[in-house]
Amino acid sequence: MTTPIDYVHGYSAHETRRLGDQADTLAELLHSGTAYPAGSKVLEVGCGVGAQTVHLVTASPQAHFTAVDIAARSLAQARARVTAYAPDARVSWQQANLFDLPFPDAEFDHVFVCFVLEHLATPRHALTALRRVLRPGGTLTVIEGDHGSTFFHPDSAYAHAAVDCQVQLQSTAGGNALIGRQLHPLVTGAGYTDVVVRPRTVYADRSRPALVNGFTRNTFIAMIESVREDALAAGLMTPSDWDRGIRDLHRTATGDGTFHYTFFKAVAVNPGALDPGDASD
Amino acid sequence: MTTPIDYVHGYSAHETRRLGDQADTLAELLHSGTAYPAGSKVLEVGCGVGAQTVHLVTASPQAHFTAVDIAARSLAQARARVTAYAPDARVSWQQANLFDLPFPDAEFDHVFVCFVLEHLATPRHALTALRRVLRPGGTLTVIEGDHGSTFFHPDSAYAHAAVDCQVQLQSTAGGNALIGRQLHPLVTGAGYTDVVVRPRTVYADRSRPALVNGFTRNTFIAMIESVREDALAAGLMTPSDWDRGIRDLHRTATGDGTFHYTFFKAVAVNPGALDPGDASD
Repeated sequence: MTTPIDYVHGYSAHETRRLGDQADTLAELLHSGTAYPAGSKVLEVGCGVGAQTVHLVTASPQAHFTAVDIAARSLAQARARVTAYAPDARVSWQQANLFDLPFPDAEFDHVFVCFVLEHLATPRHALTALRRVLRPGGTLTVIEGDHGSTFFHPDSAYAHAAVDCQVQLQSTAGGNALIGRQLHPLVTGAGYTDVVVRPRTVYADRSRPALVNGFTRNTFIAMIESVREDALAAGLMTPSDWDRGIRDLHRTATGDGTFHYTFFKAVAVNPGALDPGDASD
Repeated sequence: MTTPIDYVHGYSAHETRRLGDQADTLAELLHSGTAYPAGSKVLEVGCGVGAQTVHLVTASPQAHFTAVDIAARSLAQARARVTAYAPDARVSWQQANLFDLPFPDAEFDHVFVCFVLEHLATPRHALTALRRVLRPGGTLTVIEGDHGSTFFHPDSAYAHAAVDCQVQLQSTAGGNALIGRQLHPLVTGAGYTDVVVRPRTVYADRSRPALVNGFTRNTFIAMIESVREDALAAGLMTPSDWDRGIRDLHRTATGDGTFHYTFFKAVAVNPGALDPGDASD
């Protein structure tokens, strides 16, 4: 299967704002260590509304970026965002399917993929496809979350059940909200070498109010809240149990509450030309 | 309640070895940032078999340590271990109940507590009691795990159920294997100030064979395996489900498996004399 699945997070204005908040709060955590040399050609795959693109161009002002997304509307928003944040940034914008990219072989020195694989039914296939446009010796960087890393104080079975709704809905849509833990086997299985995966952990308590607000409340809980209608329509929880779960999640962002979430960041090298067998998933 | 509860991990020779392996593999992760000035007086509470003590004395060779445990046998093993690893270390050994320590007020500059609160029914009370022997301005360091942070690839409901057995048994014994996420409220609630809690995450995949062996296999899975008899006696799982859970845990330590666990480390300051109300839990 090479057709991207429905985008579980939707395309609303609220969602666009949420993705922006998320990227700003998490930028240092996720992007530290990612900087590309002057003149290098970097492909960002699945740039969405440009939430990560602004941080990429800021960290590597002399690199040449190409940002690709399958959705024209997202791409337009990304272009507007980057133009506003970094008017001098060197970015080419291209609407394209990542499984069928309109670029020559070995066109790029580096490829960056963030919060994309979680939405794909065939993530290993996607990573394999990206090797074609990445030069031998070029690097791949992949960042994904893992909702199974979510825990909090006070603990709540209802809150965990609400998080599980998102996991199940994403799975039903062909994605995988638990993909972070699989980055090492996925990237290795796609034929990359020198694969290094590291956890990037968000931990928020009352001593970090910006993180409580920016991540726990406005990123994570907002994301879970956004699937209420779908979760109830699918009969995954009763409305009252759902509401209690959301209330319990908000409780972790107040007073003595604490919240934990782990992202994973993989960096790897493309060893060279694809083998004939590399395309299977 | 001020009487320590039964020690869920037991006191066997195998257990002693496990705790040694655990400390060696985790030493850098857990102890980085912990070094005490020359001449400072440091109390380690609940030193057990000395697994952490050897790292404390190595990191702070000019500090004066006092190591306390309630179990004479553990204390003897700790003394032998430290003598073997660091013959020049300055350690006084004292058998005592941490709720009733035989030291004058404000005797110590620093207090270190690792993998102890998880076994106590009244962890906040314990932290409050420690303030009496810690001088005003002295620091507290606390390290605890949180079994709710455990996730792995391949995922397995049986493996999670086996981990839950340990959580339930520890809870039945009056402890809390999910205490890591509560360190901030606990330390704050005990009256300490400047409380900073940070996650210390273990992530192991095939690119880190020493960690897979030292942590996933010989520390974490060994710990879960050690409660088999109690878990089955309590009827928490059937023998065949348990065995499948353990098999699935071992699977995460082979081939393309991955494993994630989060410890929490808190550092805080004792602001001064206890208020009359501070003793309640």
